[in-house]
Amino acid sequence: MPDEFQVIAQLFAPLAKSFPGALGLTDDAAFLPPDALAETVVTVDAMVAGVHFLPDDPPDLVARKLVRVNLSDLAAKGAVPFGVLLAAAFPHGTSQDWLERFAHGLGRDLTEFNIALIGGDTVATPGPLTLSLTAMGKVAAGRAILRSGAQDGDVVWVSGSIGDGALGLQAARDQLALAPEHVAALAERYRLPRPRVSLGPCLVGVASAGMDVSDGLVQDLGHLCRASNLAATVDAAAVPLSPAARAALEQGQSLLATLLTGGDDYELLFTAPPSATADFLDLAKRIGVPLTAIGRMQAGSGVTVHDASGQILSLGQGGWRHFSATGSGAGA
Amino acid sequence: MPDEFQVIAQLFAPLAKSFPGALGLTDDAAFLPPDALAETVVTVDAMVAGVHFLPDDPPDLVARKLVRVNLSDLAAKGAVPFGVLLAAAFPHGTSQDWLERFAHGLGRDLTEFNIALIGGDTVATPGPLTLSLTAMGKVAAGRAILRSGAQDGDVVWVSGSIGDGALGLQAARDQLALAPEHVAALAERYRLPRPRVSLGPCLVGVASAGMDVSDGLVQDLGHLCRASNLAATVDAAAVPLSPAARAALEQGQSLLATLLTGGDDYELLFTAPPSATADFLDLAKRIGVPLTAIGRMQAGSGVTVHDASGQILSLGQGGWRHFSATGSGAGA
Repeated sequence: MPDEFQVIAQLFAPLAKSFPGALGLTDDAAFLPPDALAETVVTVDAMVAGVHFLPDDPPDLVARKLVRVNLSDLAAKGAVPFGVLLAAAFPHGTSQDWLERFAHGLGRDLTEFNIALIGGDTVATPGPLTLSLTAMGKVAAGRAILRSGAQDGDVVWVSGSIGDGALGLQAARDQLALAPEHVAALAERYRLPRPRVSLGPCLVGVASAGMDVSDGLVQDLGHLCRASNLAATVDAAAVPLSPAARAALEQGQSLLATLLTGGDDYELLFTAPPSATADFLDLAKRIGVPLTAIGRMQAGSGVTVHDASGQILSLGQGGWRHFSATGSGAGA
Repeated sequence: MPDEFQVIAQLFAPLAKSFPGALGLTDDAAFLPPDALAETVVTVDAMVAGVHFLPDDPPDLVARKLVRVNLSDLAAKGAVPFGVLLAAAFPHGTSQDWLERFAHGLGRDLTEFNIALIGGDTVATPGPLTLSLTAMGKVAAGRAILRSGAQDGDVVWVSGSIGDGALGLQAARDQLALAPEHVAALAERYRLPRPRVSLGPCLVGVASAGMDVSDGLVQDLGHLCRASNLAATVDAAAVPLSPAARAALEQGQSLLATLLTGGDDYELLFTAPPSATADFLDLAKRIGVPLTAIGRMQAGSGVTVHDASGQILSLGQGGWRHFSATGSGAGA
């Protein structure tokens, strides 16, 4: 395996150039300048080969997924990202070529999202590739979107489409009997989430609460309900599905539970008073991100999903848990 | 293995209580309040079982080492720490008891160093326990101690004693034929570094450059030299050794290279003009941390170590490299 310092100097230091406080990754730490007006928002996500991505996934996509999963969290808080720190445990025998492709993917997404690598640590491991990324962003002081702000009567919204992440894992494993274009679209969605970085900051001051959908719609809405001390009802028929997910659903309605509880969607889930509905529909057009009202917040606790006839759907445990996982999956 | 959300709520959320912006670990991110006067200093370190600590090390000590290794980096920059984010990949089958002991150790050190757990991510891994910690601190704007500020003629200083980390690994593995009290002291030093958090902030405005000794004195001084575009000479006889290291050295002078190039010391290495010498000796007494002048910065490049007779010592490659490791080791 290549030398640690060479790898940092050759492959990673160039990704730090745009952030002066990173000092070209030549110091022990990164320095963020004082800021009197904004809060700094910090999140961290870990990913393990074979758990959160497939061991033979292309290294550039692994790096890009790592970035995107974290940016999704920042977007959900209304923050504009500025930098990331990478802690990487590379398996013994990782080749220079693999590392170059990983760094290339990382650089590509840092450029795409206009952020810098501001620090990190690289070590060798006898185990699987294990990555963690700390992502940092800014939001005007006191204006961050929290999980806890939902009000009784608020509308529940989601961006984009739901369920593609869970189907995407099956697609990436070639376990879906669908038209090739659907399989390709779903696998792409699993390997390369699209964090809603343009949407998040637009929700500041409008959404009453928000988070990203990473563990499954129903479970994540449950988290938001708990934080807001409210219940939510969801109209399953209103939940936006991609053409690929619709095609999969036509093969068997039992798949609906997978779509509503599967992980890895990286859409934004948020709440707002009914009076904001017209604003959101305008916003959706303006930034080209579909926004769909799927339910309501109300007094009580827990999430209830009903079908078009009003019948309550049973969804099992409702979402991905990292520790008690049954081995089917994904999630971050 | 216990449920992820229960683990976070029961074991980790209590460690976040003192930091309001952590929101009790119930949201997607942590929020750091605006600060017009200070820079935020951020560092991250990764540790892997069997590489950076022994797989059967007590879980509380693993957690505490993780914290301390990171606080050492912040101290070296002159920063006062305020919070950490933990990304943990726990092996399948990790028990509730193990997790409780880990969280207990983490909490103990967070309390000792007056900081909070402000965020994190926990996942399961089929591989070894893999941890990364992002640590954050504050330093007055423009006053951080960098590696790059050393001047020709500056004195090179180190805190505490050098070489105990490398010997400590051998001691922890029962590979040292020394008196039991020395073996115990060295093993303790390896398992539980003492980050120089009280010293670091005292060096602000006095030290011209600084870093912590984590990869080995000679290699780390080499980093400082490169960043400062200077060379350094070190007087081996002046390098401070613990009683245990002295006892080990008496068994064979060839051990000197190990002491000077071994990793895991977590002492501070810094430079300052000769005029500051009296101040440092006062400071050492005041805060109870030994400070020793070991060499000089001068024009040129690289690190030269000489013995009492002025003869230059050959130290081989001079330090720990994470990727090209020969399997003997430690380092973070």
